[in-house]
Amino acid sequence: MNMKTLIIVSHPNVQDSTTQSFLKKSAALEEVTWHHLENNYTYTTIDSVKERNLLVQHDRIILQFPLYWYSAPAMLKQWMDVVLSEKLSLRGKEFGLVVTIGVKEKAYQAGGSEQFTLSELLRPFQAIARHFQMIFLPVFTISKFSYMTEEAYKKLLIDYRQYVSIDFPETFAKKEAWFLDRLNEVKEKASQPEHLVLLEEISRSFTHNQETLEELVWTLEEMK
Amino acid sequence: MNMKTLIIVSHPNVQDSTTQSFLKKSAALEEVTWHHLENNYTYTTIDSVKERNLLVQHDRIILQFPLYWYSAPAMLKQWMDVVLSEKLSLRGKEFGLVVTIGVKEKAYQAGGSEQFTLSELLRPFQAIARHFQMIFLPVFTISKFSYMTEEAYKKLLIDYRQYVSIDFPETFAKKEAWFLDRLNEVKEKASQPEHLVLLEEISRSFTHNQETLEELVWTLEEMK
Repeated sequence: MNMKTLIIVSHPNVQDSTTQSFLKKSAALEEVTWHHLENNYTYTTIDSVKERNLLVQHDRIILQFPLYWYSAPAMLKQWMDVVLSEKLSLRGKEFGLVVTIGVKEKAYQAGGSEQFTLSELLRPFQAIARHFQMIFLPVFTISKFSYMTEEAYKKLLIDYRQYVSIDFPETFAKKEAWFLDRLNEVKEKASQPEHLVLLEEISRSFTHNQETLEELVWTLEEMK
Repeated sequence: MNMKTLIIVSHPNVQDSTTQSFLKKSAALEEVTWHHLENNYTYTTIDSVKERNLLVQHDRIILQFPLYWYSAPAMLKQWMDVVLSEKLSLRGKEFGLVVTIGVKEKAYQAGGSEQFTLSELLRPFQAIARHFQMIFLPVFTISKFSYMTEEAYKKLLIDYRQYVSIDFPETFAKKEAWFLDRLNEVKEKASQPEHLVLLEEISRSFTHNQETLEELVWTLEEMK
């Protein structure tokens, strides 16, 4: 896997955010660059040359932020206003969003408490992807992080790692290959407790996948 | 007309913007407060108490800005992040947007060069209006200001003045009443050249309206 991912994180209180520290640990992969925008970034302090170089050097660009008034925090918009430029060539790169929200995701639908979908609200980002001829990835949403179960955290860790490192579209076969890679990595150094947790999760997921596969094969046989 | 309008202007180079200086002159009305956000506004310098008081004291709130990467300039987002708060009661107020764009408005449509409509891209603002139970007004768009004809500038002046001061929905009757008010104002002090220009425009508009009315009456008669 040679694809390089840049995660641009904007969070006004990142040091107090358990979500962001969880994600930072989850994204600690060789091919991933974690780039946190400092709170004191201003028009004059953002080094647009440096930032543009970072963008150009990566294959997948991810903006990661809590939804503030249905959009990115001002700091990230400032970064965009300064760094994004017509001269910048980002063609063919992948462009993803990791958005944390404080309510359930289903609140964002017609008839829900927020009435509009996240796809609608995040349209300006889709327009940016289109403008630069980047491939817009499905939005990765994390809702009500603090209320998650232990099981949900494990699932989030796997899903998020895949989002930042797996090739899109996320086919079943690719997910399996990704799991196999991780499994081999873990086998090599399985003495550490954190790897054992991952190993356990992987085994469970594989078992589940295999059961699903067996069911599908069985259903197909019946249909013949 | 006792309705009070607050125009919050965000433009990173307002002193160089011919559009904004034109609009500022056009909005010089008794019932309108022109509030330009200074470039050096930051989280620490925005006086949220003062800003919230301004919002509460007005009946129509208008955000006026050039579209920067399909959204508001970072400065305005900063103002929103700091000032907008769950505790703020804006219920029943009107909420409008005056958006300047550098391309023709029809570029913002499916199949156009921008592919998405302004209504789609500005959805986060509509969501804010809905959140605070404000009435979202039709977006007022100004496209390619520098390329406008003299005639188009005059029309823009009238349309913009109506947008910031007329009651919504903009019915034909209300527009006529608005024109009559302006006409009476102008008659009182018609010696100044700028008033004569306005007077001329009003007369033309009235003539046009009357012709339309006559046609409609005639068509209705025919249908009987």
